[in-house]
Amino acid sequence: MKLATLKRGGRDGTLVVVSRDLARCRTVGDIAGTLQQALDRWEVAEPALRLAFDELERGTDSAVAGRATMPFDAAECHSPLPRAYQWADGSAYVNHVELVRRARGAELPQSFWTDPLMYQGGSDSFVGPRDPVRALSTDWGIDLEAEVAVVTGDVPMGAGPDRCAREIRLLMLVNDVSLRNLIPAELAKGFGFFQSKPASAFSPVAVTPDELGDAWKEGKVHRPLTVHVNGKLFGKPDAGTDMVFDFHRLVAHAAATRELCAGSIIGSGTVSNKQGGLHGSSIGNGGVGYCCIAEVRMYETIEAGKPQTPYLQFGDTVRIEMFDAAGKSIFGAIDQRVERQTPPGASG
Amino acid sequence: MKLATLKRGGRDGTLVVVSRDLARCRTVGDIAGTLQQALDRWEVAEPALRLAFDELERGTDSAVAGRATMPFDAAECHSPLPRAYQWADGSAYVNHVELVRRARGAELPQSFWTDPLMYQGGSDSFVGPRDPVRALSTDWGIDLEAEVAVVTGDVPMGAGPDRCAREIRLLMLVNDVSLRNLIPAELAKGFGFFQSKPASAFSPVAVTPDELGDAWKEGKVHRPLTVHVNGKLFGKPDAGTDMVFDFHRLVAHAAATRELCAGSIIGSGTVSNKQGGLHGSSIGNGGVGYCCIAEVRMYETIEAGKPQTPYLQFGDTVRIEMFDAAGKSIFGAIDQRVERQTPPGASG
Repeated sequence: MKLATLKRGGRDGTLVVVSRDLARCRTVGDIAGTLQQALDRWEVAEPALRLAFDELERGTDSAVAGRATMPFDAAECHSPLPRAYQWADGSAYVNHVELVRRARGAELPQSFWTDPLMYQGGSDSFVGPRDPVRALSTDWGIDLEAEVAVVTGDVPMGAGPDRCAREIRLLMLVNDVSLRNLIPAELAKGFGFFQSKPASAFSPVAVTPDELGDAWKEGKVHRPLTVHVNGKLFGKPDAGTDMVFDFHRLVAHAAATRELCAGSIIGSGTVSNKQGGLHGSSIGNGGVGYCCIAEVRMYETIEAGKPQTPYLQFGDTVRIEMFDAAGKSIFGAIDQRVERQTPPGASG
Repeated sequence: MKLATLKRGGRDGTLVVVSRDLARCRTVGDIAGTLQQALDRWEVAEPALRLAFDELERGTDSAVAGRATMPFDAAECHSPLPRAYQWADGSAYVNHVELVRRARGAELPQSFWTDPLMYQGGSDSFVGPRDPVRALSTDWGIDLEAEVAVVTGDVPMGAGPDRCAREIRLLMLVNDVSLRNLIPAELAKGFGFFQSKPASAFSPVAVTPDELGDAWKEGKVHRPLTVHVNGKLFGKPDAGTDMVFDFHRLVAHAAATRELCAGSIIGSGTVSNKQGGLHGSSIGNGGVGYCCIAEVRMYETIEAGKPQTPYLQFGDTVRIEMFDAAGKSIFGAIDQRVERQTPPGASG
């Protein structure tokens, strides 16, 4: 089943079921007006949404009054949850973390291979998959981070990975934008990211795990994650490779000392595959490339002493997508342009 | 105006207006079913809620059909926002931060006096003001943190303190529970708090700033915050004293690189006044005491080489309250008992 949220009907948008080929969608206000409402009573909503999805797939008109069928346009979408009660992002591709450390000459603590890194992100104001990445200044060092994320049901405190596996409701893609030049000073203060993590954008469509077929296995998505920057292929690492902590583990980490509310979003961290240095990793040389600019800059720093590739500038575009084995887009594309935000001023 | 959320009507509870003396309350479903719904359209909801509050204060029956008046019981309350889209907690009482550092022999960076510390907290599953603090183990080092918090409207990215001042909708008290023994290892990983910050509880009542009268001045609440542990007075520091960053500054810090959605909660951090060491700070010796156990332990560490006062044990109680100049409770009391949580098990 595929679900999306159209930008209409208020801050939380309007939930629709989306055909598998992403061509059509249908409102389901009789089941749930918003995705959060569906997640809040998933036991009831999920079977009803599946019937509506099956009906849409068969191409029949709906027998239910008030369900409107229309062409699906990702440009009309908000993130599936336009705002959420929780966004917690892991860093499960430890290769990425190791490169960060290596670039600054630091050792990776051994515990990083056994204890997941996770930060609490802001979830009050996501932007839509085709909305701009807005910033006041490119001095902030604007970078993309292409990731996979899951949406959970209610998870009790202390739930183990097996229990958590059953609470994964939906999968999405994410662009977890980072402001690289703000990170060092902020992390040095010791309280984690805050200003260095502005609004994330999620894929137009969220899918139930069964939509991934064999590609969803042991809590990992075994498909390449495709990233284009300014229309040029920048990365296609496999999301199922080198993911040290699967989503079952990541959800369990989040729930270790507190319960999680239905609709909590848990991210994978930047997808990253182990590769043979700067030359071997680049797309032009047969590598799988990168899911963030910081990663190529780390290879450049390690091998050439300093980074060469600039962070994103105003006008740059980022496209993040994942295709199934038949080459069909699973989630639709995140496709964002970086734009300058005008500050509001004291009176604004 | 005073507002609360009763535990009925679903995950987000039911909004009520509460009489100034906290004796009675009245449902206002015709205006907004939940506090978040009111915050989402505050321009319309706020004047209507004020009329309902004034009507309740006058003691008249409501002229509006469906408004039910009843005795107000804090035990029936959830936190005013049972779950929120954002909970970001500052550390505005730098004295507290300085003591933390001093206890471990570290210098306080000079920038801490000019650049606010703030962490992103979990906001998906708050507990009610009379609900237990639940933990799997007291080995976690369970501590209270008594704080003040504001609820904002929509705040644009880059809004300055003056602009942010106008976006403060409500004030509340918080018990921002911390798991002290999990903090060092977690902060050492560099990504901030996560497992060390379980569910917070907020005061039964949220109030508009005008309810504080002269005590709300320049973005600070100039009243003592009263803390009892196991029925014994533990602290009463003044929330308006030694607050290095006022709420206008804290909201502006949160909005520096991203917009804030209506209903964002921004906390002050543990209230703490500068005092003359362990002896002078204790309630028994005329001091104002502490808003968290860690603070007395830091004095003990600095002066006696090691902490003496234990963290909270199962069965311990914590009460947090603030009184106006006439001795009346402004927000009602947070009153929680620490209880052991049974883990769910793999099949649970």
